[in-house]
Amino acid sequence: MTRIAVDAMGGDNAPFEIVAGAVWAASEYGVAIELVGKEDRIESCLEKIQKEGFLSDCGKAGRKRRVHIDVKSLDIKVTHASEVIEMGEAPGQAIRKKKNSSIVLTVNSVATGSSDALVAAGSTGAAMASSLFGLGRIPGVDRPAIAVTLPTMKKPIVVIDGGANSNCTPQMLKQFAIMGMTFSKNVLGIENPRVGVLNIGEEAGKGNELAQAAYNLLEEEKEKFNFMGNVEGRELFLNVCDVVVCDGFVGNVVLKVTEGTATLLFKMIKSTFKSDFLGMLVGLLAKPFLRRIYGRINYEEFGGCLLLGVKGITVISHGRSKAYAIKNAVRVAKNAVETGVNAKISEIIE
Amino acid sequence: MTRIAVDAMGGDNAPFEIVAGAVWAASEYGVAIELVGKEDRIESCLEKIQKEGFLSDCGKAGRKRRVHIDVKSLDIKVTHASEVIEMGEAPGQAIRKKKNSSIVLTVNSVATGSSDALVAAGSTGAAMASSLFGLGRIPGVDRPAIAVTLPTMKKPIVVIDGGANSNCTPQMLKQFAIMGMTFSKNVLGIENPRVGVLNIGEEAGKGNELAQAAYNLLEEEKEKFNFMGNVEGRELFLNVCDVVVCDGFVGNVVLKVTEGTATLLFKMIKSTFKSDFLGMLVGLLAKPFLRRIYGRINYEEFGGCLLLGVKGITVISHGRSKAYAIKNAVRVAKNAVETGVNAKISEIIE
Repeated sequence: MTRIAVDAMGGDNAPFEIVAGAVWAASEYGVAIELVGKEDRIESCLEKIQKEGFLSDCGKAGRKRRVHIDVKSLDIKVTHASEVIEMGEAPGQAIRKKKNSSIVLTVNSVATGSSDALVAAGSTGAAMASSLFGLGRIPGVDRPAIAVTLPTMKKPIVVIDGGANSNCTPQMLKQFAIMGMTFSKNVLGIENPRVGVLNIGEEAGKGNELAQAAYNLLEEEKEKFNFMGNVEGRELFLNVCDVVVCDGFVGNVVLKVTEGTATLLFKMIKSTFKSDFLGMLVGLLAKPFLRRIYGRINYEEFGGCLLLGVKGITVISHGRSKAYAIKNAVRVAKNAVETGVNAKISEIIE
Repeated sequence: MTRIAVDAMGGDNAPFEIVAGAVWAASEYGVAIELVGKEDRIESCLEKIQKEGFLSDCGKAGRKRRVHIDVKSLDIKVTHASEVIEMGEAPGQAIRKKKNSSIVLTVNSVATGSSDALVAAGSTGAAMASSLFGLGRIPGVDRPAIAVTLPTMKKPIVVIDGGANSNCTPQMLKQFAIMGMTFSKNVLGIENPRVGVLNIGEEAGKGNELAQAAYNLLEEEKEKFNFMGNVEGRELFLNVCDVVVCDGFVGNVVLKVTEGTATLLFKMIKSTFKSDFLGMLVGLLAKPFLRRIYGRINYEEFGGCLLLGVKGITVISHGRSKAYAIKNAVRVAKNAVETGVNAKISEIIE
C-alpha cells in the first residue's frame, strides 16, 4: 500500500483541516497515511473526526456537508515532531536549526523509505529546502522546480517553475522544460507535449535576457522539445502549448494573478447579482452553474503542485488549504508515485 | 481645443476602426483629431463613416449598434504618412529607417506642438521608441514606463511598468514608483497613493534580486512613498495598495494573464450555461448582468495606457482595439493633457 507522509502542522488551517484531509484521502484513495507533528494535537484531531466527522464544502465555495469517516479502520500512523517552522522563518536556517520540525521529519519519512511521498501545506521555502536537503537532487538537475497545473478549456497546462527559484539561468529553464514535459506526459497523460517560453511577445528576440536565451537554447533542439516558441500570458489558457517555462518569480506571479483575477471576477458576479431584485433571482438560478466553474478552476481541486527534480515526491499545497484540498494533494502524490515521474526524469536528464 | 494625434494605421483593425474611434471621440469629448496615415485610405474611411456610420458593441461583447456621426461638423485633420511599421519589425531600427511612417509622424505632431497628445494601437515597441526619440525623456527619468490601470472591487490599481522595459534596475523601479504615484494621484484622483513592490511573498527578503533591492530602496524613504512593502499577485485586486512596481516583463505578463484568465472564465461560464436547457434559459437571464461585469474589466473600457516619463503624452492601446477602445484611449489622452501629469512628474523627479 502506498504511504503518504503529511506535515500535519503546515498551513493556515493546521492541524485540524490537514488531518481531516489526510484521513479523507486514506478512506477515498486507499492509501496509508503518516501524520507528522505534535502528537497530542494530532491525536485529538483524529478523535474528533472519529466522533463527529468534519465539515467541508468540497471545494465548491458553497454549503458545507459533514463528512464521516471511520478513522480506526484506516492505516494511519502518527509521528511526533516537537517543532514547527513558521511562515516568516528563513527556510535554509530554519531547517538546520529545527531538526525536529514537522516538515523536516515528514521529508525524513520519505528519505528513509518509510513513506513513498509527502504533502506539505506550510512554508513553501521550508518544504523545498528540506526536500532538497533531505532527498537530494536527481543527478543532472541543477535546481528543483515547482510544476503548476492550470486549467484551460481543454487540457491542463503546466507552468514550471511555479516559485522554487526566483533567479534562474537559461540552462535551468531548459531543464524545467525537460521536467515539465515528463510531468505532462506521465502524470497528465498528454502525448508529445508542446513546450513554450513564457514571454511578452511572440517573435524571437522579444522579452528579457533570460527569456531570449532560453528561447535560443530550446530552439536549438526544437524537435526534442516539440518547441512552439514564445507564449504570451493571455495564450496560457488557449491551448497553444502544454508546458510553459519561466523563472520561479514570474511563474509564481502568474499563479497568483490567475487566482486573484478569478476571485475578483466571482466577487464582481456576486455583487452584480445583488444589485436588484431580478438580479437576486437570476443569481440564485445561476448559482449551481457558476459553482461548477468555480470547481474547475479552484486550486483546491488541483490539491497541490509537485516539486520536480528531487529524489522523492514532494507535493506542495496552498497555505490556505482545507481538508478537501489536502485530500486532492494526497491524490496528486499517489499519482506521482504510481506513474514514477521521478524515475522518468532521471532517465531523460541523464 | 485639445488636439489628439492618432496613428490611423496601427493595430489589427486599422485603419477603419481606428478612424471610427477617433471620430467618435471627437464628437463625444469635444476634442480635435489629427489622423496620421495613408491619406486616401483615411479619407475613404471618413467618407464611409459620414455616409453609413459604423457598428460597435460598445465594449460589451454583445449585439452591435450602428453609430452615426456627422464627421463634417468635427475638427478632423488628416496628415499623410507613406509608410507603416509592422508588428514584427525591430522598433529601434524601424523608426530610423521609416521616417515617414505613421507612428513617427504621429509622435512628430506632438513634438512640434501641433497636437497635445497621441494615441497608438500598433507596435508597442515602435510607439515607445518613437516617443522616446521624438519627445525625449523628462529630465531625471532614466527610462519611460507604461502605467497600466487594472480594475478592483473599489479603486483601480496602477501596475508600472506594464511592458516598456524588460530588464530593469532597482533605481528604475524607484522612479516607476514616483511616476506611478503621480499618475494615481493626478489622473485617477487617489489621495496619497500607497505603493507596493510586486513580489512572491509578503516578508522583506522575499523574491528575486530586483524585487529585494527595490524593496530596500523604497523602504529607505518609506514615508515619501507611503510604502506598503511587498504585494503578491493575488492581492493586486484586493485594494491593499494603489501603485505596484515591477519590471516591464513581469508587468506585461500580469496584464496579459489577467486578460487571459478573465477570457477563460467568461468562456467557461458561456459553455456551462449551454450544457442543458435550464442552463440556456438561466444563461439568457444572466447575460445582461454578466455583460455589466465584462464592461468593468474589459480593456476596451480602459482604452489605453499612458507611457510615463517622456516629454509629451503617449497613450498606448491594445493591438486588437476597435472603435470603442480607441474612443476611450482618446479620453485617457485628453485627461492626461488636462491634469498635466507630465509637468507634475518633472516637478517631483527634480
